[in-house]
Amino acid sequence: MTLAVFGSVGLDNIVTPAASVEGVVGGSAVYFSLAASLFTQVRLAANVGGDFPTQAWDTLRARGTDLSGLQVFADRPTFRWSGRYQGTMNEAETLATELNVLVEEPLVPDSYRDSRYLFLANMAPATQLEILQAFPQATAFADTMNLWIENERAALDSLLELIYGLVVNEGEARMLTGEHNLLRAGMALQNMGPDVVIIKKGEHGAFLFTPDGRFGLPAYPVENVVDPTGAGDSFAGGLMGSLAAAEDFGMDALRRAMATGTVCASLTVEAFSTSGLEAASLADVEKRYLELQDFLRFQ
Amino acid sequence: MTLAVFGSVGLDNIVTPAASVEGVVGGSAVYFSLAASLFTQVRLAANVGGDFPTQAWDTLRARGTDLSGLQVFADRPTFRWSGRYQGTMNEAETLATELNVLVEEPLVPDSYRDSRYLFLANMAPATQLEILQAFPQATAFADTMNLWIENERAALDSLLELIYGLVVNEGEARMLTGEHNLLRAGMALQNMGPDVVIIKKGEHGAFLFTPDGRFGLPAYPVENVVDPTGAGDSFAGGLMGSLAAAEDFGMDALRRAMATGTVCASLTVEAFSTSGLEAASLADVEKRYLELQDFLRFQ
Repeated sequence: MTLAVFGSVGLDNIVTPAASVEGVVGGSAVYFSLAASLFTQVRLAANVGGDFPTQAWDTLRARGTDLSGLQVFADRPTFRWSGRYQGTMNEAETLATELNVLVEEPLVPDSYRDSRYLFLANMAPATQLEILQAFPQATAFADTMNLWIENERAALDSLLELIYGLVVNEGEARMLTGEHNLLRAGMALQNMGPDVVIIKKGEHGAFLFTPDGRFGLPAYPVENVVDPTGAGDSFAGGLMGSLAAAEDFGMDALRRAMATGTVCASLTVEAFSTSGLEAASLADVEKRYLELQDFLRFQ
Repeated sequence: MTLAVFGSVGLDNIVTPAASVEGVVGGSAVYFSLAASLFTQVRLAANVGGDFPTQAWDTLRARGTDLSGLQVFADRPTFRWSGRYQGTMNEAETLATELNVLVEEPLVPDSYRDSRYLFLANMAPATQLEILQAFPQATAFADTMNLWIENERAALDSLLELIYGLVVNEGEARMLTGEHNLLRAGMALQNMGPDVVIIKKGEHGAFLFTPDGRFGLPAYPVENVVDPTGAGDSFAGGLMGSLAAAEDFGMDALRRAMATGTVCASLTVEAFSTSGLEAASLADVEKRYLELQDFLRFQ
């Protein structure tokens, strides 16, 4: 089933203990779509500048992604993000952000409006709310970030009441709820509106909260973390892609989707930028899925 | 099968965001034995002062623990530790340590020498090596801490070459190996000698490394963490107790033992001092074991 995603397209500068790269392809909508398109038909919507390399879309096109929602501002620069990872590389330190074309409202193509599933990647909650109104029939999941939790709380609260699922990291979950304990944070988030809450814990995996119960899993074990950028969006893409393909939001489907998401994140962190996800096939995902199952198995 | 443990008996002062307690029962050998004695016959060896409450041994005696190795120094004070937990309570900040009777060598009763399994809780590696020599036939696991990694590295390296299993937390694993990535740290630790390496990650669970493969699991989900003191020793006690009871160190037995350990740790953190483990029955452990299995299950 079709899955629409609204988010960012970016050019990233990334510093890690081992190496640095400049102007590489990034953005939440790109990572999300590269993961989700392994499983289902994706419709991408995002703003992009004239400086973004057009060949960056080749893999997504080959995976059947609809790019009608790509709004190109030919004379303006793409969103840019610079970040640094240190030590355990579990958290990025943002060095610089240039919003550029992200200040413009995204385009919502009419052809996207019958999408059955919707993912609103991190952006201003007022914009997320506006997009959401164009998809009254969709099952919608959303992400957010500390900036909006601090400065746009009212709009964010309205959004939380309307979405089916929330996907946040542990810091955001704690900030939104004031709860240190992640189980309590998850339950508090459910009380704010979403039926389904997912808390991403980076290298420590993720928790799932549903009306039917909870689920937890560690991350797929990766020995060589090269660049964690996009891991969370890849997780969300794998999750939503898996759910959309199954056309099922039951507890068992959600458990499988969480495992699929963590596998997609593992493919992302093993290489800079999107190259891990671009090189990956459905067979690669299935292989790691079975390895993860074996890694966690006990009688 | 019999399992001997050498470690500390202590009186702890503990400060948490919600409450504080003073002079409560603690120590690695106590937490370890309370967990392990749910599964197998335990032989405890530790030094204790005249100020330690004798009724603290009632539960261990009722669980069949042999206390012949308890060396009482009637006129001297018990080991004391003061610590504080903040925020996510994932790490203790040590406020004060009074070694007191811990400066004396532990007693190794002759009656303990035929123990099939041995756990050397955190203490000076030279002392661990000395004890180990009294148990040439035992399958031995050991713990350590940052102090010895920094100051007694040569003795610790000798110990690592002789033990079957190492149980450390993630900080210790990183410090011992210089590897940030825990999978690489685990493999590097195996190269230092132990066949089996277990890295404890607190609220994030634990990793297991064996010659036959790896295993990982998140912690049993606890909504109300009251006092994390002793969680690591309770984990080790549940792990070793489970292995000793099964008389099996194969991969499947180790997976079950890891899950048993995380359940024992969850019982400890829900209450101050040892009261969680003292109140627990084998049935409580089995119930949580099945809950953990369900929490992690995906097809």
